[in-house]
Amino acid sequence: MERPRHQGMAKNTYMRWRLPLVCLLWEVAMIILFGVFVRFSPEADAHWEEEKQTMNVTSDIENDFYFRYPSFQDVHVMIFVGFGFLMMFLKRYGFGAVGFNFLLAAFGIQWAILMQGWFHSFETGKILIGVENLINADFCVGSVCIAFGAILGKTSPIQLLVMTLLQVTLFAVNEYILLNLLHVKDAGGSMTIHTFGAYFGLTMTLILHRPNLEQSKDKQGSVYHSDLFAMIGTLYLWMYWPSFNSAISEHGDAQHRAAINTYCSLAACVLTTVAFSSMLQKKGKLDMVHIQNATLAGGVAVGTSAEMMLTPYGSLIVGFICGIVSTVGYVYLTPVLESRLHIQDTCGIHNLHGMPGLIGGIVGAITAAAATEDVYGKEGLIKAFDFTGSYKTRTPSVQGGFQAAGIVVSLVMAFAGGALVGGILKLPIWGDPADETCFEDDVYWEV
Amino acid sequence: MERPRHQGMAKNTYMRWRLPLVCLLWEVAMIILFGVFVRFSPEADAHWEEEKQTMNVTSDIENDFYFRYPSFQDVHVMIFVGFGFLMMFLKRYGFGAVGFNFLLAAFGIQWAILMQGWFHSFETGKILIGVENLINADFCVGSVCIAFGAILGKTSPIQLLVMTLLQVTLFAVNEYILLNLLHVKDAGGSMTIHTFGAYFGLTMTLILHRPNLEQSKDKQGSVYHSDLFAMIGTLYLWMYWPSFNSAISEHGDAQHRAAINTYCSLAACVLTTVAFSSMLQKKGKLDMVHIQNATLAGGVAVGTSAEMMLTPYGSLIVGFICGIVSTVGYVYLTPVLESRLHIQDTCGIHNLHGMPGLIGGIVGAITAAAATEDVYGKEGLIKAFDFTGSYKTRTPSVQGGFQAAGIVVSLVMAFAGGALVGGILKLPIWGDPADETCFEDDVYWEV
Amino acid sequence: MERPRHQGMAKNTYMRWRLPLVCLLWEVAMIILFGVFVRFSPEADAHWEEEKQTMNVTSDIENDFYFRYPSFQDVHVMIFVGFGFLMMFLKRYGFGAVGFNFLLAAFGIQWAILMQGWFHSFETGKILIGVENLINADFCVGSVCIAFGAILGKTSPIQLLVMTLLQVTLFAVNEYILLNLLHVKDAGGSMTIHTFGAYFGLTMTLILHRPNLEQSKDKQGSVYHSDLFAMIGTLYLWMYWPSFNSAISEHGDAQHRAAINTYCSLAACVLTTVAFSSMLQKKGKLDMVHIQNATLAGGVAVGTSAEMMLTPYGSLIVGFICGIVSTVGYVYLTPVLESRLHIQDTCGIHNLHGMPGLIGGIVGAITAAAATEDVYGKEGLIKAFDFTGSYKTRTPSVQGGFQAAGIVVSLVMAFAGGALVGGILKLPIWGDPADETCFEDDVYWEV
Repeated sequence: MERPRHQGMAKNTYMRWRLPLVCLLWEVAMIILFGVFVRFSPEADAHWEEEKQTMNVTSDIENDFYFRYPSFQDVHVMIFVGFGFLMMFLKRYGFGAVGFNFLLAAFGIQWAILMQGWFHSFETGKILIGVENLINADFCVGSVCIAFGAILGKTSPIQLLVMTLLQVTLFAVNEYILLNLLHVKDAGGSMTIHTFGAYFGLTMTLILHRPNLEQSKDKQGSVYHSDLFAMIGTLYLWMYWPSFNSAISEHGDAQHRAAINTYCSLAACVLTTVAFSSMLQKKGKLDMVHIQNATLAGGVAVGTSAEMMLTPYGSLIVGFICGIVSTVGYVYLTPVLESRLHIQDTCGIHNLHGMPGLIGGIVGAITAAAATEDVYGKEGLIKAFDFTGSYKTRTPSVQGGFQAAGIVVSLVMAFAGGALVGGILKLPIWGDPADETCFEDDVYWEV
Repeated sequence: MERPRHQGMAKNTYMRWRLPLVCLLWEVAMIILFGVFVRFSPEADAHWEEEKQTMNVTSDIENDFYFRYPSFQDVHVMIFVGFGFLMMFLKRYGFGAVGFNFLLAAFGIQWAILMQGWFHSFETGKILIGVENLINADFCVGSVCIAFGAILGKTSPIQLLVMTLLQVTLFAVNEYILLNLLHVKDAGGSMTIHTFGAYFGLTMTLILHRPNLEQSKDKQGSVYHSDLFAMIGTLYLWMYWPSFNSAISEHGDAQHRAAINTYCSLAACVLTTVAFSSMLQKKGKLDMVHIQNATLAGGVAVGTSAEMMLTPYGSLIVGFICGIVSTVGYVYLTPVLESRLHIQDTCGIHNLHGMPGLIGGIVGAITAAAATEDVYGKEGLIKAFDFTGSYKTRTPSVQGGFQAAGIVVSLVMAFAGGALVGGILKLPIWGDPADETCFEDDVYWEV
Repeated sequence: MERPRHQGMAKNTYMRWRLPLVCLLWEVAMIILFGVFVRFSPEADAHWEEEKQTMNVTSDIENDFYFRYPSFQDVHVMIFVGFGFLMMFLKRYGFGAVGFNFLLAAFGIQWAILMQGWFHSFETGKILIGVENLINADFCVGSVCIAFGAILGKTSPIQLLVMTLLQVTLFAVNEYILLNLLHVKDAGGSMTIHTFGAYFGLTMTLILHRPNLEQSKDKQGSVYHSDLFAMIGTLYLWMYWPSFNSAISEHGDAQHRAAINTYCSLAACVLTTVAFSSMLQKKGKLDMVHIQNATLAGGVAVGTSAEMMLTPYGSLIVGFICGIVSTVGYVYLTPVLESRLHIQDTCGIHNLHGMPGLIGGIVGAITAAAATEDVYGKEGLIKAFDFTGSYKTRTPSVQGGFQAAGIVVSLVMAFAGGALVGGILKLPIWGDPADETCFEDDVYWEV
């Protein structure tokens, strides 16, 4: 019996010392770095009581906490329950889906607070954090959860932690380039979260290609109950996506508008997903994979433009298209990617985050380029795109160009980063499972 | 072997062209209608930045978004997870319960924004939408989810979409009559949502009566795990009901009060449900059907009066009664309705929404009629019942009369509408399942 | 065949008259007491419209509802879904876990509103309730849910109701001593909720010791799906804990800070839980029991100090330690407690709430004692510890001493109360299950 697995021998998946060591050392590192760098923002610091007076704030309700905390909690649910349960569809990988997602996200948010903090909230040597930092950390980790979807079931928890460390780092760099250098708008992260996360994950899984993965094919499907658990994830992602896309928008009309646009896009997306799920199947029956995933593409695809004047019908159009693109992707593209391009994408993130993320970037660029004072109002236009300071003279069409550049940068960063991290994860020291024990909780969990 | 099914021959449940066609055409219609009619409300429009100044609004926190968005998200969870999972109790209809609920609600909210918009938010030719419109759309769809409960497992997805289209339309008409013509208060929808939705659904299922439904009786029960999934739905409905009943109340004390009253009513309801569930069963054991459903009746029954000065102990009394009524209904009334009146009510919506909805309307009428300046304060009374403009001279007792009229109108609309829609759904073109394949996911889903 | 069970004969678990009687009579008592005592607080009363003007409140958004309602709903989810589902890990006790938790919590919140109201919100003969009272009632019931965890599967619903009545009463007394007499800060309840609840429950289960519990040992474990349901509970507790610890803190910076500290502590806790779960197991595999429980210890342990200037890195340190303590407790301490001390702790509440609660009290005392004007600002320090009125001259170090005293008082109250209630529950009249039918839904539920 030949065993042509790429690493050539039985895998050592024994985690007893490696995993604890990584967890403990890294957490100690977090404590030290937080100790040196992280403090409360003025609105979370006990000095607020005095600062309020000097800043002429008349009411405690003006604290950013009340503008953003409900959205933060919704985003938090999306990251931990949404992603965790959505990935629970595999029949024997429920612990791994929800448990490893929990682990990597819990580490990732800490590291993200630091990385994003150094780039965005660094003042006089300290990172001053408030509720917006928590949201941004969750967002950053969201892109890691997306990449996790591509390699779900095929990696050890240590690999996932290594991936998280590196991906969060690169995410922060990419985000800095987009938001600060290119001055791009991307409040719901079509580019920074979805495009970057998806193509990062796809590149990784290409590098980590397992030629004999069919040895665990019997475990790669779902069973009735695992599909129902996955629907919990789907619905929480779907319902709370308006909060996701509006969470860090400007106070007032921008948050309001972003929620409405996302609500509309997601609603339309459900209809076209159902239509194509039925149409593309000979017996005309609906496929739970599509319902679980493609219905969410509408949220991804307005991630850049939701806070702009996309308008409700514009959102419906975007959702309409993305439900189709995503479902068609599951039916036709995923098998081709696997057979021809050797991209083994467990959750089909290319269909849910990759293509819709790209569409989202493009829609954002177009919407920005089409902005006018007529539609936004003079002050509204300045506020919406932050045409202030050194960007005072930037026009909407130029903004559109920079938005487009943001897509390209995100893609390049994702390919390069995914290749790098994929290469590192390929080292035979991380305890990944053998081909025949992929998609199986028993490897890393007491069952 | 005789086959006395009312349509006389094997059913064609093939959805491949019919379902996609309906979904795509209707979604295109939504896009066109949204394009013509729907725009952002001032608080969600980029002009807000300028408008704020002319309207003398000093802070972004005064935006309606911050008053209502957290409640909106809770309501959203109730519609999609609450109803979707509550209906998952059937052993082999989990995909249909959560999936079809998802489909009809996603379509329904779009159509509801239009229908309710034409009646309530139509200004200078446009429907201007904000977060309150999203809540109202969710509310409207809630009544469709209720009606769905009566026909759960016995209908095709196309039938459900047709039902949604028509029921949302009639809902909006009924709501217009009550809120605008009768000037009735019904913030939590005891009349407009629950009474209307329940009797609409019950009339439909009467028309759609299946004399040989016992052929699928083995699938009409629950199994251990499906009951646990259903409890997710129950708990989310129960926990978030205070948000439901307060979501569109006036800012300030009314929202605050509505949440408290609902919290109290629901708590009391649990106790009497448990009491009667145990008492009405020979072995004294608790029945999950009652815990899943009757515990929620307290929320339905304060849907009209929660924002009024019902008081906490008044709410406890209402909840106390409704837990009893609803549980007794499940034990004694549902079997009679089925055997004598040919009303096959899959989820027992008569017990959860029908009777408690009626009680809610009556409690609302009494509470309104009993209102005094002493209890509300002079200005408080005017604000609570909106005794302004052409209603300046209306007295509480007259208001009580109009509230009572609202119940009657809702019932009449429900019976007439349900009969009409039931008749339409009976046409043998919608692909409904045969009697022996009811309550079975396999008909419309890849399992 | 000898039958050495401590009560010596077959148990009568027939609930048909006893359970309904208790539920109905107690609910009637609630109605009467609410009727006599409970009214709306000014911010929930219709007079608010007028009162606003006299109190010079310019906007409805200043209503406490908008400061606390989103957090309230998160806490509500923690009590009903969080605890209910976390306890669902037993293979045959899902109905009992979620259903009895629902029952006792629904009763408990009503009684808590009264008990806490008499101590804290009693004005001119009435208890005036607003959203903060609802949160506090949920908090109080949280301590009952904790105690329930120790006796899960071994008690009848009547016992649970009796326990709730008495524990809520004693909780309110203990809370009054701590908050009012000792003037202790404990916004997230490390002492009042967790320490008190845990040691109350542990004392009860000691008194109720079942020497032959191994007769139902086969049912005391989990199965794959029950572990996944339990993860729903875990994640909702974990995600919403920042809301729990910040829900009743002062408006503004204190709420903001409490959320951030809790977020940090919980994140760190996950890493050390995973590390020790793997390390303490020969095969190095992760144990779902630890992931489900010990990951939450970080939330418990900052329950007192989260609203103080614990700082993010301080929170990480606390979470780091508690993940270790809790996991080690599950592996080494729980078996010893059971075999040596006869403490049969079904859910391991000693590891999740007991030890972390004590740590939380100690961390709170230290953080309070270490407070300086430099760190808090002059006004900030006064506000944070409410050094006003008769406490105007109290210093941080004295406050630290009182905080420490609060731990001792909570422990004494828990031991004494648990012994008393355990003794009452031991009476052979409450219908508890026989040793061989523990952890089995079939006893009290139609399955």
